[in-house]
Amino acid sequence: MSSDEGLLSPVRAGTRAEAATADPAWLRAMLDAEVGLARAQARLGVIPERAAAAIAAAAAPERFDVAGLARRARDAGNPVVPLVADLRAAAGEAGTFLHHGATSQDILDTAAMLVAVRTRRLILADLDRVLAALARLAADHRSTPMAGRTLGQQAVPTTFGLKAAGWLAGCADARDRLAALRPPVQLGGAAGTMAGYGDGALGLLPLFAAETGLAEPVLPWHTLRTPVTDLAAALAAVAGALGKLAVDVILLAQSEVGEVAEPSVPGRGGSSAMAHKRNPVLATMIRAAALQVPAQAQILLASRVAEHERAAGSWHAEWQPLRECLRLAGGAAETAAELAEGLEVFPERMRRNLDELCALLAEHDEDLGVGSAPALVDRALHRHRRDGS
Amino acid sequence: MSSDEGLLSPVRAGTRAEAATADPAWLRAMLDAEVGLARAQARLGVIPERAAAAIAAAAAPERFDVAGLARRARDAGNPVVPLVADLRAAAGEAGTFLHHGATSQDILDTAAMLVAVRTRRLILADLDRVLAALARLAADHRSTPMAGRTLGQQAVPTTFGLKAAGWLAGCADARDRLAALRPPVQLGGAAGTMAGYGDGALGLLPLFAAETGLAEPVLPWHTLRTPVTDLAAALAAVAGALGKLAVDVILLAQSEVGEVAEPSVPGRGGSSAMAHKRNPVLATMIRAAALQVPAQAQILLASRVAEHERAAGSWHAEWQPLRECLRLAGGAAETAAELAEGLEVFPERMRRNLDELCALLAEHDEDLGVGSAPALVDRALHRHRRDGS
Amino acid sequence: MSSDEGLLSPVRAGTRAEAATADPAWLRAMLDAEVGLARAQARLGVIPERAAAAIAAAAAPERFDVAGLARRARDAGNPVVPLVADLRAAAGEAGTFLHHGATSQDILDTAAMLVAVRTRRLILADLDRVLAALARLAADHRSTPMAGRTLGQQAVPTTFGLKAAGWLAGCADARDRLAALRPPVQLGGAAGTMAGYGDGALGLLPLFAAETGLAEPVLPWHTLRTPVTDLAAALAAVAGALGKLAVDVILLAQSEVGEVAEPSVPGRGGSSAMAHKRNPVLATMIRAAALQVPAQAQILLASRVAEHERAAGSWHAEWQPLRECLRLAGGAAETAAELAEGLEVFPERMRRNLDELCALLAEHDEDLGVGSAPALVDRALHRHRRDGS
Amino acid sequence: MSSDEGLLSPVRAGTRAEAATADPAWLRAMLDAEVGLARAQARLGVIPERAAAAIAAAAAPERFDVAGLARRARDAGNPVVPLVADLRAAAGEAGTFLHHGATSQDILDTAAMLVAVRTRRLILADLDRVLAALARLAADHRSTPMAGRTLGQQAVPTTFGLKAAGWLAGCADARDRLAALRPPVQLGGAAGTMAGYGDGALGLLPLFAAETGLAEPVLPWHTLRTPVTDLAAALAAVAGALGKLAVDVILLAQSEVGEVAEPSVPGRGGSSAMAHKRNPVLATMIRAAALQVPAQAQILLASRVAEHERAAGSWHAEWQPLRECLRLAGGAAETAAELAEGLEVFPERMRRNLDELCALLAEHDEDLGVGSAPALVDRALHRHRRDGS
Repeated sequence: MSSDEGLLSPVRAGTRAEAATADPAWLRAMLDAEVGLARAQARLGVIPERAAAAIAAAAAPERFDVAGLARRARDAGNPVVPLVADLRAAAGEAGTFLHHGATSQDILDTAAMLVAVRTRRLILADLDRVLAALARLAADHRSTPMAGRTLGQQAVPTTFGLKAAGWLAGCADARDRLAALRPPVQLGGAAGTMAGYGDGALGLLPLFAAETGLAEPVLPWHTLRTPVTDLAAALAAVAGALGKLAVDVILLAQSEVGEVAEPSVPGRGGSSAMAHKRNPVLATMIRAAALQVPAQAQILLASRVAEHERAAGSWHAEWQPLRECLRLAGGAAETAAELAEGLEVFPERMRRNLDELCALLAEHDEDLGVGSAPALVDRALHRHRRDGS
Repeated sequence: MSSDEGLLSPVRAGTRAEAATADPAWLRAMLDAEVGLARAQARLGVIPERAAAAIAAAAAPERFDVAGLARRARDAGNPVVPLVADLRAAAGEAGTFLHHGATSQDILDTAAMLVAVRTRRLILADLDRVLAALARLAADHRSTPMAGRTLGQQAVPTTFGLKAAGWLAGCADARDRLAALRPPVQLGGAAGTMAGYGDGALGLLPLFAAETGLAEPVLPWHTLRTPVTDLAAALAAVAGALGKLAVDVILLAQSEVGEVAEPSVPGRGGSSAMAHKRNPVLATMIRAAALQVPAQAQILLASRVAEHERAAGSWHAEWQPLRECLRLAGGAAETAAELAEGLEVFPERMRRNLDELCALLAEHDEDLGVGSAPALVDRALHRHRRDGS
Repeated sequence: MSSDEGLLSPVRAGTRAEAATADPAWLRAMLDAEVGLARAQARLGVIPERAAAAIAAAAAPERFDVAGLARRARDAGNPVVPLVADLRAAAGEAGTFLHHGATSQDILDTAAMLVAVRTRRLILADLDRVLAALARLAADHRSTPMAGRTLGQQAVPTTFGLKAAGWLAGCADARDRLAALRPPVQLGGAAGTMAGYGDGALGLLPLFAAETGLAEPVLPWHTLRTPVTDLAAALAAVAGALGKLAVDVILLAQSEVGEVAEPSVPGRGGSSAMAHKRNPVLATMIRAAALQVPAQAQILLASRVAEHERAAGSWHAEWQPLRECLRLAGGAAETAAELAEGLEVFPERMRRNLDELCALLAEHDEDLGVGSAPALVDRALHRHRRDGS
Repeated sequence: MSSDEGLLSPVRAGTRAEAATADPAWLRAMLDAEVGLARAQARLGVIPERAAAAIAAAAAPERFDVAGLARRARDAGNPVVPLVADLRAAAGEAGTFLHHGATSQDILDTAAMLVAVRTRRLILADLDRVLAALARLAADHRSTPMAGRTLGQQAVPTTFGLKAAGWLAGCADARDRLAALRPPVQLGGAAGTMAGYGDGALGLLPLFAAETGLAEPVLPWHTLRTPVTDLAAALAAVAGALGKLAVDVILLAQSEVGEVAEPSVPGRGGSSAMAHKRNPVLATMIRAAALQVPAQAQILLASRVAEHERAAGSWHAEWQPLRECLRLAGGAAETAAELAEGLEVFPERMRRNLDELCALLAEHDEDLGVGSAPALVDRALHRHRRDGS
């Protein structure tokens, strides 16, 4: 029986990020880490080429029983120990060359970075869709007047283009931070000295990195969790930037405001109690993700305080929250792409809502113009075009 | 493909709490909520008895496709809408009487409380095992001298019994808080006015409560999240009290201290790199849970700030963290029962470590006695016996 | 130079809760703890009555240099060590009887509970004002129709009285949880064995409790942090319940909704840029508190995982977050009292906003009534009257 | 009466970071923001040079009553409104040119960045001391053997140099992230359109940036909180990296381990109850900071979800947590400099503890060497020398 197929987290149910962070994806990544290590060692001549090939052949994810591994993980506190046992059995004679000089954390940390990099690819692609759609909205509505609102009150005029440009800039910031990360392999052996690798130990690092497509670290990072906290911060930025878009959509779509609506799809946004309603469900799901990620990220931020050469608990506390950060940010990005690409904008209603504000402003002899909103849109679009692929 | 069978969370992999909080358990609880509502309405004469029976017959969990429901939940932002559609189809003519006057949140909130109550039963049973084992340790070692330690330094003598009595008292506090909760049904209809139920609306509340075994609330709690935040606080207390036990075991089991060891089981506590090691894996997993629950609980604490008659996001952000709190606390409790029942205690080593301290204390003319440690043990045991079942 | 006079936290700047949790209030509470301990020991005959009187006389807060104590606290990691030195010097010959058998944590934990109890008194008084005002609003508007809103969309009619009754019920829940706590004294000596007190040790606990007005614990709670986590949960409940009120006021006060307004005070709610605006500043400040308290509370929840007989860090990490929880909850309560007592309600505007919804509902043949809203108001008022002082 | 002079937070009591983030420092920064804006406008010819000079002359911090401003901030929800009023009064005729086209958030956000940049300077200087000291320890003990420990158990040999190199690398990572930030000015006017500045608006941004020494943003970031969340992540990294050092020192200084000790200073590390103890108080205080910063940072991460053109609450919730992040990280850095520079290392004791491990390893025919530990030290030192100033 599966404990989680997404029933309690619609924002990522069925999304590509969910699949990319699911137990089978972690299993595959752990196998990839073992295979990458074997291949790197074969290239160094430390183990036979043939052994590496046999290990690679044995490392077919479908051979392994995820639920069984999960349970057996309780004996060692992590799933690598039983996985190595099973993979060793599957690899026959080559099994003695498996996991050579490595410790569980080498494999699990490297796997975590592989999962992160693979999920990041999806997130960046979805963010690119979001950015493109927001850039279009910003350009199209560069000068579409609407009420700017502060503390929930109509304040002064702005343009919808500037609002979209703000969303664009926030998401671009977050994309930049995520894209800039260079997640590294982890390889240190029992206590980070690479003692199992003899004199060629340091030569193994770049080869292992090359085999897995990850970066080479300066030091083993067993208890130096920068790669994890960097991911936490970047994924929180992604969720937060999308959450900003979402909260604005929810507020602008309120019955009494009515300036935007979510893309209309038959069956979407329905209520089990009210036939007449059209709920902003995409934005609601994104916001739900944005409300969860900072707390998950915090667990990761706190994991830097890791004892000695392997933390008794804070390392183990990282895995599920890292998955949550990845799949919530990824689910939010996929959801936001749909939202941004299909957002309906109602300039007439914006104009109508603005009229009341302008009457009030006129009464107080205040400025009725949109100031530099269009020029600011151009700045944001310029950055977008410069940085875009 | 399942996204989570526990691979990243060994503390609860394969535990009863995991099963009790898994997607199928939530599905069953949602069905139970619908059936309970139908039966309550039948008792009031609002819908035919026969319809309630047909709904109950149709509500067999195995009929429903959890993964499919999870995906379809994206259209409404919650899984109740597609579930009601499927259950209605399965119930035939009785389907028109299904979900009568209710809204999605009524069903999901009630289901959440059912899941919580069912998982709580397991947690309390495991806590009772923990308490019994700790009470035995406290009694057996009432006067076993050991070094008390503050800020990591040996301070003055205490007894191992008092240490165990402290664990006992902390766990008993947490048990009390969890056991005291009275999770209620939720029933408010579209916006909490119970408008669909006519004059008999208020009469429906106690009947719905009786059918589900939950408490009757004063008001619908759509956006009054006391039942959720109370659970969060109590589950954080459970995880924290067990985490206190765990951190002490980790520290006392250090190679250089060696005053306790985890229960010895073949294959347990092994390392993938070091044959000689015996790791405190039970305590490590418990501590990992204790490091996660406060952050998950915080998401729930924050959800009290819920807008209007249904929050756009903060409600949806509760579900997965509530599950995490329940299954992490539950997994930790099951793990702690095994730890506490099998903990090995080494009074000789305690004595040896203490000798150095006593020499130092004697040098400073300080007291070498254990003070009122035994009498304090008796106080804790007295409370335990008074409150115990 | 003071580091904090409230400039960055207007919600509590100048409030009574700020004063009750300020450094001088903690100083006073630490002195009260020392004096209470001396008096309890004098009653037991352990120290001379005269010594207790001399200690009490010396313990005048204005004698002590708070900033100096704060700096000297760095040598011991806590402020009790320098305070005891200064108080001993001030007490003359009686100084040898000061702090007898106690450790720093006994004094600081007891002082924390004193500060908590004293601040709680203020919070409860302000919550009572809030409850009374909300009860009036609920009664006055028992049947005042307005739109119920879910996910930001108008859903079905409700009454403003039911909305106010919801705020009332949420705040009453929180009040109950805070009022139910029985914060205890802490007294354990160096490592929780009460070794300094000889055979009469356990007799000292009820006397110390009586002298300070705090409860008597079962065990010293050096590293059993139930009293702290209970406070955290209750204060988060208070901040959250007030935050619910605040977010609804912010949304209802939006320019486009206009159904309520904050109490009008000359100079209040102004903007530095816009003369025409009337900002919901009270609600904004309350919401700001509600956004901070859960994170502060989480630090406290996490502090249960405390090592051995004194935690190296997690204890020290409690003090400032506990103060923040108290003063943010207290500031929010004082602010909310002003908000609730002066809230302006615009039934005409509610009616106007509702008309559009009713037209839409009529189109879909949906119910236009407010259901059991008035009856539910009565339930909430009944509970309020039953529980009220 | 001051509410906080550091009594509850010894880690920063009396430190330079405390002073740099205190209310008077924020006051000064707000004044600097107003003066910088006036000067920038004078350079553009928008206001008279003389007015800018008069404003600068009036903006003497000592003229302003911080506590009074804090209280009056309650009327507007932020301290800029009363400050502008007082500064205007002080500036005489030039007052009409003050705050021209700006909104409170422009000043407060710019001031926050000034405070951050000024405090960062101190943090970086202290981190440089930490890095230099750790590099010395790493070099000196490049080959000093000691036990590597995982899950609290002795695992395999490592060197103290590699442990110090790990601390070094973690702190260097954190330093890099903090140093890389380019905090920008904020300037948007009432709703981010810069409407008050006419055609030259965009020209004002670089001038305002130049006057304040901050960066120029692409867009006003009223509700695009990247500068704040970037700071949160970097400061959490700093606190976490220092916390890693601290937790290792606490563990290595345990009575039963005794491999390091904190710098010995008369009066330091004393206990109010135990004359014989030498507590690791510096490390304890640093760890206390590391336990608080992630939760404070999380409030900032969550503030990205900011509504419309000014958030009603989440903006206001940033100020105090940002201060806490800055002063806790800063206090921890200053404390860590003292710790790292004076850390006592006991190679004899390391050797003795290791002997037992080696006997055990020999029994299991395991490797007794330190592997590539010295070579890894060299890698870390190489990076340090390359990046160092």
